[in-house]
Amino acid sequence: MKINKSLGEKCWVVPDGYIPQTTDGGSNNLSGYISHECVCILNSGSKDARIELSIYFEDAEPKFVEGIVVPAQRSCHLRMDQLQTDGQPVIERATPYSLIVNSSEPIVVQMSRLDTTQNNMAFLSTMCFPVNNNEE
Amino acid sequence: MKINKSLGEKCWVVPDGYIPQTTDGGSNNLSGYISHECVCILNSGSKDARIELSIYFEDAEPKFVEGIVVPAQRSCHLRMDQLQTDGQPVIERATPYSLIVNSSEPIVVQMSRLDTTQNNMAFLSTMCFPVNNNEE
Amino acid sequence: MKINKSLGEKCWVVPDGYIPQTTDGGSNNLSGYISHECVCILNSGSKDARIELSIYFEDAEPKFVEGIVVPAQRSCHLRMDQLQTDGQPVIERATPYSLIVNSSEPIVVQMSRLDTTQNNMAFLSTMCFPVNNNEE
Amino acid sequence: MKINKSLGEKCWVVPDGYIPQTTDGGSNNLSGYISHECVCILNSGSKDARIELSIYFEDAEPKFVEGIVVPAQRSCHLRMDQLQTDGQPVIERATPYSLIVNSSEPIVVQMSRLDTTQNNMAFLSTMCFPVNNNEE
Repeated sequence: MKINKSLGEKCWVVPDGYIPQTTDGGSNNLSGYISHECVCILNSGSKDARIELSIYFEDAEPKFVEGIVVPAQRSCHLRMDQLQTDGQPVIERATPYSLIVNSSEPIVVQMSRLDTTQNNMAFLSTMCFPVNNNEE
Repeated sequence: MKINKSLGEKCWVVPDGYIPQTTDGGSNNLSGYISHECVCILNSGSKDARIELSIYFEDAEPKFVEGIVVPAQRSCHLRMDQLQTDGQPVIERATPYSLIVNSSEPIVVQMSRLDTTQNNMAFLSTMCFPVNNNEE
Repeated sequence: MKINKSLGEKCWVVPDGYIPQTTDGGSNNLSGYISHECVCILNSGSKDARIELSIYFEDAEPKFVEGIVVPAQRSCHLRMDQLQTDGQPVIERATPYSLIVNSSEPIVVQMSRLDTTQNNMAFLSTMCFPVNNNEE
Repeated sequence: MKINKSLGEKCWVVPDGYIPQTTDGGSNNLSGYISHECVCILNSGSKDARIELSIYFEDAEPKFVEGIVVPAQRSCHLRMDQLQTDGQPVIERATPYSLIVNSSEPIVVQMSRLDTTQNNMAFLSTMCFPVNNNEE
């Protein structure tokens, strides 16, 4: 079997961040889904990747989150609504933001959002924008 | 903490622009959402970015909008349905269009659309197409 | 005002083509939408772009469609379900296919799909994959 | 008619893999759709493409699947929920994963997901991330 090398880039950007309000709990919400955003990361290489998030807002200074690790040869689906510092959510719901993902190792990053504000969910997804390391 | 440099490109293209009709106001529309498109921009650099929009139609001459600024180290979620010149909407609802975003500084741009024409919303999103500045 | 140059590439690929079945006409389908796919093209340049589509199937030979023109400085939202040759649809509904868009001029291409098979619509969109002309 | 050359890359990455639970069979599910993910591949070239999938998980060793062939000049919409080895599904439903698609020939790859967990479907799609062969 082929072992994949370390694939991707060390820096990824997603301009459209927005965690919708929580589910209204209507009787038709049978799925158990809750509105959230997920930053999906693949680290196909043989070294653990140390991840740092830079979070930009419309009317406030950026926030930074360190200490996230995606192990070698593992997938990570990082829930943005569960991100906390000092017991407080880093990103409030219903607040537009943008995100930069910096990594110590090459990774590939995709962003997906699930919205269950209404009785029936909607979701979207896009590959994030890769920044070539040599350009940094 | 790491300070991110100015990331991205100065020109971005999105071929599929379309602002759906407004919500029908049905009793199931509990979310308060209204159909719209959002051009999401990250300016991670240290200088304010001056933005110019070029809007192309199927049967009419292109329109241009200047005067939009995305401050340094800020996110901007620009509502296309709220874009006005001389008190009139620049883009009519239910009209297919395409968009070019030109910026004085490197930015990253993503386009998302929310459709609440029906009782339950749908949405889509895609990273826009970056034009390398050296190719222009 | 800045006039944009001819932006993009001359060849674009979209692997996931699928035109859903038509709307079921249920009482909740208030929007008037019909399931379709749209190939969205921007020709920002000063020359008309002659477009050729190559359509690939799972179990049949590819089909080719010529004669589509996107005028200079115009947007085109091309409905795949309305594409016909000799009065017959080129692509049957509910048939997986892939698409290559070749153009005489640089363009940018995005693919979107609207599905109204159920009472409430869903849609998706992605930027198509650009093929650098020098690689062809 | 123009015959397209072999277009794309030999390696593609999709970080966000997730096959939702099966349809709940509610009375409003008129479409017959079942939740699934589809890896859509175009092989525009003149040689059959041998495909190998590498599947990464959050808490387990990666799995590899060989033996998939996309014939020359054909589209393939590969259902991830129907992927089996030794009569067992390779990927369990409701399990986050990431995917690398390796091919013997240049291809283009897009990933789409249909979720019918609720009465009304949602779906998403994104072009996968291409890895330039010379960088491998």
